[in-house]
Amino acid sequence: MPYRAPVSEYEFLFRHVVGYDQVSATNRFSEADGETVSAILTEAGKMCEEVMAPMQRDGDLHPARLENGVLRTSPGFADGWRAIAEGGWIGMSAPEDHGGMGLPMTLTISVNEMMSAACLSLQLAPLMSQGQIEALEHHASDALKELYLPKLISGEWSGTMNLTEPQAGSDVGALSSKAEPNGDGTYAITGQKIYISWGDNDFTENVCHLVLARLPDGVPGTKGISLFLVPKYIPDDNGNPGKANALKVVSLEHKMGLHGSPTCVMQYDGATGWLVGEEHGGMAAMFTMMNNARLGVGGQGVGVAEGAYQHALAYALERKQGRTPAGTQTGTIVDHADVRRMLMEMKADLFASRAILLACAVAIDMQTATGEADWGARAALLTPIAKAFGTDTGIRVAETGVQVHGGMGFIEETGAAQYYRDVRVTAIYEGTNGIQAMDLVARKMMDGGEAACRLLEEIQKQAERARCTLPELAEPVWQAAETMREATEWLVSQSDMNNRFAGAVPYLRAFARVLGGHFHLTAAVADKDGPRAALARFYIERLLPEHSALLAHAQAGAEGLYALGIDDLARG
Amino acid sequence: MPYRAPVSEYEFLFRHVVGYDQVSATNRFSEADGETVSAILTEAGKMCEEVMAPMQRDGDLHPARLENGVLRTSPGFADGWRAIAEGGWIGMSAPEDHGGMGLPMTLTISVNEMMSAACLSLQLAPLMSQGQIEALEHHASDALKELYLPKLISGEWSGTMNLTEPQAGSDVGALSSKAEPNGDGTYAITGQKIYISWGDNDFTENVCHLVLARLPDGVPGTKGISLFLVPKYIPDDNGNPGKANALKVVSLEHKMGLHGSPTCVMQYDGATGWLVGEEHGGMAAMFTMMNNARLGVGGQGVGVAEGAYQHALAYALERKQGRTPAGTQTGTIVDHADVRRMLMEMKADLFASRAILLACAVAIDMQTATGEADWGARAALLTPIAKAFGTDTGIRVAETGVQVHGGMGFIEETGAAQYYRDVRVTAIYEGTNGIQAMDLVARKMMDGGEAACRLLEEIQKQAERARCTLPELAEPVWQAAETMREATEWLVSQSDMNNRFAGAVPYLRAFARVLGGHFHLTAAVADKDGPRAALARFYIERLLPEHSALLAHAQAGAEGLYALGIDDLARG
Repeated sequence: MPYRAPVSEYEFLFRHVVGYDQVSATNRFSEADGETVSAILTEAGKMCEEVMAPMQRDGDLHPARLENGVLRTSPGFADGWRAIAEGGWIGMSAPEDHGGMGLPMTLTISVNEMMSAACLSLQLAPLMSQGQIEALEHHASDALKELYLPKLISGEWSGTMNLTEPQAGSDVGALSSKAEPNGDGTYAITGQKIYISWGDNDFTENVCHLVLARLPDGVPGTKGISLFLVPKYIPDDNGNPGKANALKVVSLEHKMGLHGSPTCVMQYDGATGWLVGEEHGGMAAMFTMMNNARLGVGGQGVGVAEGAYQHALAYALERKQGRTPAGTQTGTIVDHADVRRMLMEMKADLFASRAILLACAVAIDMQTATGEADWGARAALLTPIAKAFGTDTGIRVAETGVQVHGGMGFIEETGAAQYYRDVRVTAIYEGTNGIQAMDLVARKMMDGGEAACRLLEEIQKQAERARCTLPELAEPVWQAAETMREATEWLVSQSDMNNRFAGAVPYLRAFARVLGGHFHLTAAVADKDGPRAALARFYIERLLPEHSALLAHAQAGAEGLYALGIDDLARG
Repeated sequence: MPYRAPVSEYEFLFRHVVGYDQVSATNRFSEADGETVSAILTEAGKMCEEVMAPMQRDGDLHPARLENGVLRTSPGFADGWRAIAEGGWIGMSAPEDHGGMGLPMTLTISVNEMMSAACLSLQLAPLMSQGQIEALEHHASDALKELYLPKLISGEWSGTMNLTEPQAGSDVGALSSKAEPNGDGTYAITGQKIYISWGDNDFTENVCHLVLARLPDGVPGTKGISLFLVPKYIPDDNGNPGKANALKVVSLEHKMGLHGSPTCVMQYDGATGWLVGEEHGGMAAMFTMMNNARLGVGGQGVGVAEGAYQHALAYALERKQGRTPAGTQTGTIVDHADVRRMLMEMKADLFASRAILLACAVAIDMQTATGEADWGARAALLTPIAKAFGTDTGIRVAETGVQVHGGMGFIEETGAAQYYRDVRVTAIYEGTNGIQAMDLVARKMMDGGEAACRLLEEIQKQAERARCTLPELAEPVWQAAETMREATEWLVSQSDMNNRFAGAVPYLRAFARVLGGHFHLTAAVADKDGPRAALARFYIERLLPEHSALLAHAQAGAEGLYALGIDDLARG
């Protein structure tokens, strides 16, 4: 099934839905106007369609493997990496003075999403480099930037993130990796890290690891953690890869999906590393890296949703089965009401999740361009929603895609199953979706719900404007935002944080549903008698109502969750 | 992770929730009293724990394979089959005069569910035999019954169902396999069948295929289809397997999961078959077989939900991560609110789906024992709900189980991923869940909604009785049943069937939610101050409200589904 890059969909969203015109109106991003956007998306889309999409199944069938300590990647992936690097897609938003293109994050996110749809396993490699580039840009010394950024941006070298240890996953502060000063400005890093995506490869000259570790005087917990840059090969005086560092890939994980992406257990045995940021300031640098990666992972979910949707639609348009309803025309299963329902749900949620993702990217760009705190707060609020809803949508759409295929969906050769297996991890890595929801109801509500309520007010104002033209769509969106505002007020009034955490996931899902309603309505206004309005109507009538059950759940409090003792939970 | 059979849970459900006492009060099933039930469930549970559960992962790692046309099953599966056969678990509900135990279907369904939790791939083999036994019992000649039933019931021979062909899946009437009379009372069967679960094995003496095919004078569509019994080896005069029949396994499918169960492409080249039932009466016999299998597949979903829940709980009770909330005690992740939420959702839906399954089985048994049409209508109404909601719950619980494991959930060695992969097919085979929903809103509403409304009235009456003791739980259940009744009235008033089909899946899901509320409330009444009431409270407060959004969707009609043209669906 060939993948087709949804370029015109992005163009529509940029122009009519997520307010990209604000970004290109800034000095910083004035060159990234509509024409440039279209040219870039078209070019990247072509690479995704022609180079990456054909590799998708090879990565699944021929996983990366470790041979005598040497990592061998899936067939064609080296060529794929080169195409990504040469297209400039790694460093699209990286600083121009180090070889990047300095383009808005909104564009990077869009291109990343297309690459995810085409070949998720491979796309994870540049995503890791991008996180590293951003962390170095904001936290590394000039010397490190000079040496590493051009290589990472050009794709000659690649980057990884080393956070997790067996006992330190969601609780990164529990890590035990150690860093000892060598006395020459470098540090000796020792410890084991797990779940390291693309911890090695056979197509870049060097692999640069950002490793969280604790200095001898680091206090326990997150406040005693520092970040180090630890390259596979130590650069020589000319900045070329020199002698091998004291680190290795111990083993690769056997995963349910994403087989083309090597998930490594890494061992550091006094490896030479360079401090990034302040001593004991590792968490700040890590958050830079993770915020970028979180949005990127949200985009992975949206990308897989697009791929799985296209795949299911193509099958539905070709498969003949049963008598189709009177008045329908294709004679294929696409005309059965329940198949239509599935495709419409997929498409409507795909639109919603993509709009949320891009709106978050726009907020990031506006913050970068203007420095305004409100934009920063908007980006911070939307990031966990974009991550969790994007990946939940990827999982749900891939699951529905399997269902559209019927029996063929369970057969690997069809390809629908791979989307389902691959995308499952996106709800887990870069902070599980539960952690995202806890971030939303705790850290992101430290402003007393101000950023959330400001956004909900905007949604209501837009609904009020839409009332005269599309009252039957505008009214439910206005009401949903109102219910959401009340739930937010309830939430921030809970001083027992566990009452917030108890309803965090349903709260986040409800917020995404309401945002989806808003963006669908915005699209409908721009295409009042067209298919955008028809899709919005489907979403607002049939999916948006979910928000109210979710908010009942969100406000039910923690007590009921503990009403069953451990014995009761275990009894059967 | 060892599986523990939830025997006491069944005992509670039998006694307090699904009205099993009515079954054992009949003459037909008077021997299956509480003591017998406990003894049987305990014995079967022991076999599941000790024999089947240890095979679960072997089946995944070492799939069945075809070697020069000979099928080799996964390690240990032959022993597993023997244990199932020798325990008498294949023919529990089969007639006693052919070696069965003549026990209620409610017990068979419970044992099947436990076997599914322990090792789904293997459990599918006896499930197929059971469907065949029931079809032969109701439709075969006495001679066929005499010869085949004892062998199938004892497990010396096994049975399969051969319905699907490449162009005839959900639309079984499109099949092209042919049957020609041989002139000696037998028929020559020719054609290819796909997706044949356990189409062969290396542990039974014979494999008996029930094959749908069309006689020369069979009209097109379902009315021209006949059913034939086609054994792998033709029985000799002593009823022992004789010469090989003209059929073979052409290939095995590569599936996302259920690797231990061989899914065969079967080729029949003039194979000798015997007519089962009337000429052109194949669909009636097939429905007998499929109704049994549908409920069985619902039980597979519930079983996997139980296995995945136990697996996730065990992990949550052992994994330490992060600071657990004040006042909690284990120090493991089970005390985090969001982990509790996930476990409570899993447990609450597991309870609901199991209760629906067993209530359906009770209705079948009551119909068998009393012949009353109302019980038949109840069973017919509940079957598609039990199948679709049971399997949806299996998928959802397995998905949540992966999430509870965090990163470990994506790693195959943990086992959580296997549940997720294995169970996915249950929403597809024996009629996709979309087909189940269409059955519910069309065929099962041919009575004008009478059976549905009678059930909803019973729910309301029970809620009225519960009002004095548990008003805050009884009231929402009563209201939900009322909303459901209104939606049912809307549904049956739709003469354009496509309006029903458009909302079929959300309607079925809403019905399951309401039934779940009813059974939780019933359990709460029986355990007013105990954990059952606490779980019911969780379900009724946090999950039951979903029904109203689902019913909005269910009543939105077909028109909006077709508002997007094919070009609009494809545009991106």
